[in-house]
Order: sequence, then structure tokens, then C-alpha cells
Amino acid sequence: MIRLYELCASDPDLVFSPYCWRVRLALAHKRLPFEGLPVGFMDKDKIAFADSRLVPVLTDGDIVVKESLDILEYLDRTYPQAPLGLDSEAGRARVRFISELILRHITPVTFKPSLLAIYEAQPESARGYFRESREKRFGCTLEQLHATASAGDAHTALAALEAQLKNMPYLDGNQPGATDFVVVAHLIFSWVFGFQYWKDDSAVGQWFTRVLDAYSEVAGPVKRLIHPAAAQFRAA
Amino acid sequence: MIRLYELCASDPDLVFSPYCWRVRLALAHKRLPFEGLPVGFMDKDKIAFADSRLVPVLTDGDIVVKESLDILEYLDRTYPQAPLGLDSEAGRARVRFISELILRHITPVTFKPSLLAIYEAQPESARGYFRESREKRFGCTLEQLHATASAGDAHTALAALEAQLKNMPYLDGNQPGATDFVVVAHLIFSWVFGFQYWKDDSAVGQWFTRVLDAYSEVAGPVKRLIHPAAAQFRAA
Repeated sequence: MIRLYELCASDPDLVFSPYCWRVRLALAHKRLPFEGLPVGFMDKDKIAFADSRLVPVLTDGDIVVKESLDILEYLDRTYPQAPLGLDSEAGRARVRFISELILRHITPVTFKPSLLAIYEAQPESARGYFRESREKRFGCTLEQLHATASAGDAHTALAALEAQLKNMPYLDGNQPGATDFVVVAHLIFSWVFGFQYWKDDSAVGQWFTRVLDAYSEVAGPVKRLIHPAAAQFRAA
Repeated sequence: MIRLYELCASDPDLVFSPYCWRVRLALAHKRLPFEGLPVGFMDKDKIAFADSRLVPVLTDGDIVVKESLDILEYLDRTYPQAPLGLDSEAGRARVRFISELILRHITPVTFKPSLLAIYEAQPESARGYFRESREKRFGCTLEQLHATASAGDAHTALAALEAQLKNMPYLDGNQPGATDFVVVAHLIFSWVFGFQYWKDDSAVGQWFTRVLDAYSEVAGPVKRLIHPAAAQFRAA
């Protein structure tokens, strides 16, 4: 039995962490049933057995794997059906490089509005920790960070995705693969709170729907918690 | 016999176009001898046979291929020795996506100082065209563009490369592949004019030297034309 330890909010069904989403999407793609185990920000002892303070952690019988990209590689090696395209060294290296590029050039723009939404979705017991740790990391209040978020910037940040997806249905070509799941996970991170930076009929929008629909067919609808500020981020 | 039509300056041996460099590096990697045919900015009639105004254009006997990524795919399909990692659909798609990401998030920062250097390296007959077309494209003079270039920004823009190369010797893993050649070509574009944004002992610096040395072993030393402003872009 596969178990996936995932970050949660007050509602244990609200999955928002992009790193957890990377794994969820890969599991659904491979039709691998799993048990999701919610871990709150104050519950990190639950994953101490993995010698980690960070989710996702995946267990498969006695095997423990952490770090989203290591988990994707483990899954593709162990369960070769519905390949993720991680069977070659260059394939693995390219997905890791794409992840590095995304984390430096796209998510620093797109993540901004979500932090306040995550804070508000936490139980009282986790709010103090979340606010303090994030405000220290970003050097400003969650509200100030939220105020610097710009729908226009977020839309522009997706230009490379739009260019690629105009030429092929998935980032990995004619079939979805690790690149798709790694990247779309960071957009789901905003979208579960209602922040959508793309038009439905853009190449990015059509791809997002295609990937989410395939996921929902296997795993059911995605729980969302629309933030009051979401409407102003809607792509014009 | 393979022929490569490449952009040139007054000195026909000064190769600077990043798109031509992508192909040169792949040819050297595969130990494929070729004849380089210099094409000046005012000489585009030389490639009219390919129905193109843009270099690189590669001919292999009767076969004509244009667009750098199409050429790399052609070479890997036709000459499988020393693979570039373009034999799978996901492999090709990832390199194309990495190219889109690089062109939107890295080269807009790193290319800036080179344009004035290219202008000064042109024969009198090409200078008017080059200045006019580029100033129209960028909405400012070449000198203004040069003045906005920042060594610090260029250094920061290489952070994703540095992160990847701290974990593996090449962007594509333990062996160089298409990703390496596609990306390093844009750094060579600056480096031939003396603009080097990385420290020699950084992961990027060591990788750059490794890739260039392998190229030079096959194709000889790279012709450079150091611009007077280069010293101030040297990584501190």
C-alpha cells in the first residue's frame, strides 16, 4: 500500500502544496491507488520517521522516499506503466533543470497571492507559526506580499509555457509526462485558492484543463477554497 | 559533405550567433566534419535557396535543414553516435521547453552588452542595417541598451544553471547533450566578446570550460574579439 504524507489546512481534503501535487498527479497518471495522510504545519512529528521536516513523504510498504523529484523517479522506476519519461539520465536531468528554472523564474511571481490564502485556511494553532516563519523568509508581512502580487506579471510569467503548448498538447509532447506534472503543480497551488492567471481558451488554459480533467477522472474532483481576492487575478 | 551557413562579422572566423553555436557544438560532439560558410547581415541571398532569411542553415548533400533545434534533431536522428538525447519525444519536447524558458528568462538579461560589440565588429556596409533594425526592435539606441546591461543581473540570471551544475557535471547529467549545447551557446554569444558573468571556479564556470575545451579539442580554438567594456562585466 502506497501512503502519501501531504501538507493540509483546517480542511484535511484541501491539498495545496505544489510538491505534494507533483506526486498526486503522477500517482493518478499511473493509476496507483494510495492513502493520503494529512500533515499540518504543527504536525511535522508525523514524518519524523522519514528523517524529514518536509512533505511530501511517500511510503511503499517498507520503502520510504522523500523529495518530490526523487519520488517521481522512484515511481517511474518501480511502476513503469504510463511512463513519466524518467527512464533515461538525460530525461531525469532535464526535468530537474526545468524545475530549477521554474522555481527561479516563474513561481516567485505566481505564488504570491496564495500565501495569505494558505494562512487563512489554517487552524488557529498553526497560524502563528505560519505567519512568523513566512514573514521572516520574505522580509515583509503576508499582507504586504499579497499586495505586491500582480495578475499581469503572473500572466507574463507563463509566456514560455504558452509558446511550448501552442506547438504540442503537453509540455512533454503528445503525452503528459513528468514535466507536465512538475510544472502544473505550481499552478494548481494558486488555482485551488481561485487565482487563475490564464484565459480558459489560451494554450495554457486548455492544457491545464486537460491535465486536471485526467486527474479528476481517476481521483475525483479537486477541493478548492476560493479566496475573496481571487476575482481580481482572473486573466482579462 | 555537411555545410553550415553561419552569421559572420568583418572577420569571417568570428562566429557569435548563439543559434549557429548550438549547431557547431553538436557537430563537434558527434565528430562530424563540416564546412562553415560565413553569411554577413547583407548577404542573406546566400541562404535564399533554403527559403529562409535566418541562419543557421545546414545542408547535408541534397538535404536542407533550418532552425537550430530542427537541425539538432536531424543530426541526432541521422548520426546517432555521441547522442544528444533527442531520440524520444519527451526528450525533444523538454529541450524545446528549456529553450523557451532560457529565451524568456535568461538571454534577455545576458545578451545586452553583446549587441554593441556585434555592431562594432561589422563591416561598414552592414552597420546601418544592423543599428536600424535592432534599435527599432528594442526601442532604444544600441548605446542605451548597452548602458542598461548589468553584470549583477546577468550573474543572478544564471542561478538555475548553477543549482543544476552543482549536482551534475552537465545540464544533461553525466554526459553533455542537447540541453548543454542549446544553453551554453547563449553564453558563448557574450563570451566571444569578453563578457563573462561567472567565476571560473563556479559550477557554471567549470562546466563552461569543460564544454568549450571539448569543442576546441575537435574544432580548434574559438576566435574572440574582446570588447573594451568587457572588464567591467567580469564576475567579482
